[in-house]
Amino acid sequence: MAVVLLHPDTDRIELVDVLAALGHPLRLAIVRALASGEEMFCGAILPEVPRSSLTHHWRALRESGVIRQRPAGRKLYLTLRRDDLEARFPGLLALVLGEAESRA
Amino acid sequence: MAVVLLHPDTDRIELVDVLAALGHPLRLAIVRALASGEEMFCGAILPEVPRSSLTHHWRALRESGVIRQRPAGRKLYLTLRRDDLEARFPGLLALVLGEAESRA
Repeated sequence: MAVVLLHPDTDRIELVDVLAALGHPLRLAIVRALASGEEMFCGAILPEVPRSSLTHHWRALRESGVIRQRPAGRKLYLTLRRDDLEARFPGLLALVLGEAESRA
Repeated sequence: MAVVLLHPDTDRIELVDVLAALGHPLRLAIVRALASGEEMFCGAILPEVPRSSLTHHWRALRESGVIRQRPAGRKLYLTLRRDDLEARFPGLLALVLGEAESRA
């Protein structure tokens, strides 16, 4: 059975959904783990948290447009949709990740 | 019976709580209604939405540090904690309210 993972197109990513997705400690930690932009195997992100506790968070992050999930065999690989989020809400991700430059 | 409304001190406002508070369509609409910075009677905000649907949203916004609620007699007045949020997370509120300047 093929895994179908729905991802919103960039222009369908909604601010309220992104805020809701980011507004959870585990999801914020996932986003921080992915901040470098590198694709990661989902088992390598927050390995100390039981996988069963994370499954619905992957989905919340994916369906809101925050991450991309790519199935490869029985594994799932995750990337942060940095460029898409930046295109929709410039500065938001940097701010949430604490990367924002201090302002004069 | 005195109404006790707990508000976090500015330095106790947490990003994840603010994001969660903002990550709901009604709460985002409330914040937008308060964006001017003026104090508003809660009944004047989203008057088309039943009050019973809003009560727990006031609380979510207050407990996360997004708004301040001031009881006056039997009424509640609300203000957006703009300065406090700006002090904690510079630029976040402007970005969420769509006030961010476009960047070169």
